[in-house]
Amino acid sequence: MRNPLSQRITTIQPSGIRKFFDIVSEMKDAISLGVGEPDFDTPWRIREEGIYSLEQGRTFYTSNAGLAELKDAIAEYLSRRFDLTYNPKKEMLVTVGGSEAIDIALRAMLDPGDEVLIPQPSYVSYEPCTILANGKPVIINLKAENEFRLTAQELEEAITDKTKILVLPFPNNPTGAIMEKKDLESIAEVVIRHDLFVLTDEIYAELSYAGDHVSIASLPGMRDRTVYINGFSKAYAMTGWRLGYVCAPQVILEQMMKIHQFAIMCAPTTSQYAAIEAVRHCDEEVAAMRDEYNTRRRYLVNRFLQMGIECFEPFGAFYIFPSIQKYGMTSEEFATRFLNEKKVAVVPGTAFGASGEGFIRISYAYSLENLKIAIDRMEEFVKGM
Amino acid sequence: MRNPLSQRITTIQPSGIRKFFDIVSEMKDAISLGVGEPDFDTPWRIREEGIYSLEQGRTFYTSNAGLAELKDAIAEYLSRRFDLTYNPKKEMLVTVGGSEAIDIALRAMLDPGDEVLIPQPSYVSYEPCTILANGKPVIINLKAENEFRLTAQELEEAITDKTKILVLPFPNNPTGAIMEKKDLESIAEVVIRHDLFVLTDEIYAELSYAGDHVSIASLPGMRDRTVYINGFSKAYAMTGWRLGYVCAPQVILEQMMKIHQFAIMCAPTTSQYAAIEAVRHCDEEVAAMRDEYNTRRRYLVNRFLQMGIECFEPFGAFYIFPSIQKYGMTSEEFATRFLNEKKVAVVPGTAFGASGEGFIRISYAYSLENLKIAIDRMEEFVKGM
Repeated sequence: MRNPLSQRITTIQPSGIRKFFDIVSEMKDAISLGVGEPDFDTPWRIREEGIYSLEQGRTFYTSNAGLAELKDAIAEYLSRRFDLTYNPKKEMLVTVGGSEAIDIALRAMLDPGDEVLIPQPSYVSYEPCTILANGKPVIINLKAENEFRLTAQELEEAITDKTKILVLPFPNNPTGAIMEKKDLESIAEVVIRHDLFVLTDEIYAELSYAGDHVSIASLPGMRDRTVYINGFSKAYAMTGWRLGYVCAPQVILEQMMKIHQFAIMCAPTTSQYAAIEAVRHCDEEVAAMRDEYNTRRRYLVNRFLQMGIECFEPFGAFYIFPSIQKYGMTSEEFATRFLNEKKVAVVPGTAFGASGEGFIRISYAYSLENLKIAIDRMEEFVKGM
Repeated sequence: MRNPLSQRITTIQPSGIRKFFDIVSEMKDAISLGVGEPDFDTPWRIREEGIYSLEQGRTFYTSNAGLAELKDAIAEYLSRRFDLTYNPKKEMLVTVGGSEAIDIALRAMLDPGDEVLIPQPSYVSYEPCTILANGKPVIINLKAENEFRLTAQELEEAITDKTKILVLPFPNNPTGAIMEKKDLESIAEVVIRHDLFVLTDEIYAELSYAGDHVSIASLPGMRDRTVYINGFSKAYAMTGWRLGYVCAPQVILEQMMKIHQFAIMCAPTTSQYAAIEAVRHCDEEVAAMRDEYNTRRRYLVNRFLQMGIECFEPFGAFYIFPSIQKYGMTSEEFATRFLNEKKVAVVPGTAFGASGEGFIRISYAYSLENLKIAIDRMEEFVKGM
């Protein structure tokens, strides 16, 4: 029998994040600081709306783009929170998490050979989704000395005449880095001058700890060249509901819509009804979770400072990205030995790109109690080195 | 500003099904026989499990491939109902409906220029998803004189040295055609002789009215060259839950898994918990809905016979596909005039491929009462012609 596979798919590596989870799930007394998902259950009032919609028998397809009521509520939310103005009828699509939005945006926009600039360390999907969409990923290696922000110079140096899209993954998974307004303004200047498009993944926007999050889509001249991605997973602790959304100029959105229509149909109906409650009435619940993450964040920053482990202060998402370079191990070695010897799972920085070498990702989407135990174990682990 | 779009995406037309819905939704007293989704709410015991999982706070990601308990239950179901044996750990992936499964199977298997044989009339996704996956769709025009079944000769004639995959969409949307065991055996012989793969979309398998459905994956020599797609939308009236699954040899499945992991993450968690109940305990509910569809199906067949409208008897899904050729209109004209003059929405056969010309698709996923009114109006509509 001949080979059933496409040549391209076999060149793509599976995500390096999950390997450690499989080990930790079978190890007794192990603590995981590995997962990139809130430790909170979805707030009850959101679940209640999901339950109500099931009781009412709302078990049918919604329109491809999503429930009109949900899209209206999202538009109102984006305006209220991030000063973004999108027409919910023509510039918005409800997706299966932010993941689907990334995939269909790249599929709608890339011709073979188009280059996509991907700052790394960053979420694991951008590179494979670019390859699958016939594009060519061009990695920008972010630097610890810049607190893993993207600089205009780094961007400028990576641009060629094939460059079409810049992926902007801030607040960042895995580093916790953010981009403030002034940072974004210098990026926007370069983007506009080179006539590029931006795919901005702002799934962690609500988890910003240094003032309000600013979207590049809100800067002058950027709206028409930006695909804006957000969703419910992180801010509302709704990962399992698989619900995100994408806003873009109509000319781009209507093409993404075709792929969504054929490959997905619509986002889950129960999740859509529940999400109306989330964007309309859950600012307080989001603030309470953010405060709790912030407490943990400060705890970790202080502990690493006390332990003499180098770590810039992360102001976004729920990750901290300490340097383990001085221990003379690769990230993979450090994570493997830490798991085997102290039963704590963290993710090697290299799972998020080569520039993550020398760092580990620690998620603080875990209770303060667990974080304390884990960091105590880390202190023991590095003491003898 | 330059063009943001990929050249390819702009060549793909949006689905022709929805146009009539948009009109009918704004027309008073209109009846739609257009939608391809069960008119039943999801059975209560399934919804109850979804509600319970939300109450319990099961709002987190599942593993990428889906809940182990659900996959075990699906494996048991496939063995019990269709004599199919798949390893739930290595050969099964829970997807966002059958739609996602179609998309990622093609993306995992196609190299540029590979030809995919698509019998039409058929569901609207196969052709665009093939194009998006760099493949070349090759249409096989099925014939009314064969009751829209695919014959070995039609298949043989369409094969070239570029052919890689045959899509097998039976029971069929929009024709209601089925493929019986003897039909499948002659197809399997050609597939094996030419070393092809089969993507079999059996989403309507439970809605078979002429004896038990047979899967081509169960025929000798076919399992290793078949990607088997099924799901919960049609059999269990669970369209809005967005839940399907795909079974395939491990070598194919693990490549599909990578795309699923990066572009989707996992299927909705609430839906997965509810679906365990569906496959384990809802054979009776499925049988009751099937009986109801069957009653409507026989009603329509008789009415068309009485009206002198030519129509082969459909034995699958919930569609009937009468010929309107004798009225001297195209399918599009017939559907448009019927909607405007009698306020009944049906879908022109051409929405499912050029070989649907001269036919209309009528869905009987509507109450017998509505079907009677609609067919009465159709009788009036064609009387004067």
